[in-house]
Amino acid sequence: MPIPSPISWTSTHAVRILDQTLLPGQETYRDLDSVEGVAEAIRTLRVRGAPLIGIAAAMGVVVAVGTRERGKAGKQQLETIEDACRLLGATRPTAVNLQWALDRMRRRAEKAMEQEEDLRGALIAEADTIWEEDRAMCERIGELGATLIPERSTVCTVCNAGALATGGIGTALAPVYALHRASRAPHVVVPETRPLLQGSRLTAWELTQAGVPCTLIADGMVASRLRLGGVACVIVGADRIAANGDVANKIGTYGLALAAHAHGIPFYVAAPTSTLDPATPDGAGIPIEQREPAEVAGWQGNRTAPAGVQVWNPAFDVTPAELITAIITDRGIFKPNEISHSE
Amino acid sequence: MPIPSPISWTSTHAVRILDQTLLPGQETYRDLDSVEGVAEAIRTLRVRGAPLIGIAAAMGVVVAVGTRERGKAGKQQLETIEDACRLLGATRPTAVNLQWALDRMRRRAEKAMEQEEDLRGALIAEADTIWEEDRAMCERIGELGATLIPERSTVCTVCNAGALATGGIGTALAPVYALHRASRAPHVVVPETRPLLQGSRLTAWELTQAGVPCTLIADGMVASRLRLGGVACVIVGADRIAANGDVANKIGTYGLALAAHAHGIPFYVAAPTSTLDPATPDGAGIPIEQREPAEVAGWQGNRTAPAGVQVWNPAFDVTPAELITAIITDRGIFKPNEISHSE
Repeated sequence: MPIPSPISWTSTHAVRILDQTLLPGQETYRDLDSVEGVAEAIRTLRVRGAPLIGIAAAMGVVVAVGTRERGKAGKQQLETIEDACRLLGATRPTAVNLQWALDRMRRRAEKAMEQEEDLRGALIAEADTIWEEDRAMCERIGELGATLIPERSTVCTVCNAGALATGGIGTALAPVYALHRASRAPHVVVPETRPLLQGSRLTAWELTQAGVPCTLIADGMVASRLRLGGVACVIVGADRIAANGDVANKIGTYGLALAAHAHGIPFYVAAPTSTLDPATPDGAGIPIEQREPAEVAGWQGNRTAPAGVQVWNPAFDVTPAELITAIITDRGIFKPNEISHSE
Repeated sequence: MPIPSPISWTSTHAVRILDQTLLPGQETYRDLDSVEGVAEAIRTLRVRGAPLIGIAAAMGVVVAVGTRERGKAGKQQLETIEDACRLLGATRPTAVNLQWALDRMRRRAEKAMEQEEDLRGALIAEADTIWEEDRAMCERIGELGATLIPERSTVCTVCNAGALATGGIGTALAPVYALHRASRAPHVVVPETRPLLQGSRLTAWELTQAGVPCTLIADGMVASRLRLGGVACVIVGADRIAANGDVANKIGTYGLALAAHAHGIPFYVAAPTSTLDPATPDGAGIPIEQREPAEVAGWQGNRTAPAGVQVWNPAFDVTPAELITAIITDRGIFKPNEISHSE
């Protein structure tokens, strides 16, 4: 069974998203026809996953220069785009793909102005290119990563770095899907990934939809599962990769890397080249988004913790380069200390 | 503010329990006047925590030889006790205190028969002794453990090994409460402990009730929190300690131990001597309870995972002795490899 696409255009180039906050219970699509709507969808994780955030933001810029902007002066249109980029760029601080995609849209708008092209048409084409490039990057990561996974093995991931996080077949899950096409899918161990349960809600859902066998565990079971044996490797995505190969990814990744290290299990990071941030020398320089206490203190409005309890809720952690066996990108497989030369 | 007691007798010696499955939302007490009711309460974790399970089971044996048993022949009464011990003993496989408490009740019943004592009176006294001994063991663990915690520091625990898990001030939390009495309570980092959230529902609740400052985190944040710095030590409870010092405790403990080791943070286990199982040479011999998939696939009846997904749900894991700095018991502080000589 194919995996539903998490994003598409409507016939009028509004942004149609699969609302990931409602999965797996409901498969609801929302049409977003304002930049505020797109920003809200990114901020509230209706659309999430570093590569998909980049695509959604690019499409959000298109929505910002909707039909009502036509006929306005070029300067006014560029201001609209600047405002849109500022709004969209402030939604999530950690993923570097967001800024990267917005920078591309900004530059394309400037070029369109200079060359007196149709602005909206140029921006639609640029967003489509970003999307198509992402799809192709996922495919390439899948091909390369598949060579690292032994036949009929078990792999472990965290959070969701699958089709729902990208414009294609995912990053961490791309090798899994590549093997699945050849009827050689590995079994995937899926930590539920509290507080927002992207593992149980999204990864287990898309793997089940695709017919890939998986086993769900609670996050505290990760080390015990690796100790049990039979896990060939760990593959995770990335929200930002610093110049030295340190990787920011969903909270829980670092503990998973420590457990993999303790058991001699290879730990792979799969990410498109747009996730690299050569301007940030190491993990200490990566801003870590802190989210609402309520996410940890309960689930969907049902409190599970006593009133007034303090909460620490970082959305990401940093895995140091020395715990990473290799980084699988669309440009090849690199040792973490070689990653800054991959561009 | 004092912590409510998780267990007590009613005036007719039924077992009154605080239903821990309803915390922190509701503070509901249930009076259990049948051995089946006590067994159900242990099996469903209304009463939980290795030491408290022992106490509850002992009290459950009293309930089994309730007033209706009076006048029956001694042999019939002993059969009733055997049946009760079999039922109660099968509720949870990992905690060794359960069998230990039931063995004591069985022996006391036999002695009462031989010496023609009042059976029910003797069993009530024995259950009270088990409870009182547990209370005293908690106090002693608190005194000893307090010497290991630096002034105004932060400590990290997992699950609930506090007042709600024992007949006294807890095991892992006993040193915290001992310091709290001297107005020197440390700050406690509390992982929520999925799937049943004993950290957020129970530990955060009882610490808040007692006025001890704490910070709740998701389980995947543990390694990142230790890396952040400022955590003086980790203290956890135990469900069974093998002869070589390997420790079975709530799932997630092993990952926490790996993270503590990676950051050079002392890792302490606090448990009464009744948790030692000299008959089990090492952790590989400890039976690990597997619980229902639904616990991981959702929360309180709300499914969070797609239908039909496979789940692995061990309730406990084993932390190898080499990751344990010391074991704090009521008889002293031991290196794991010395623990079998502590008895």
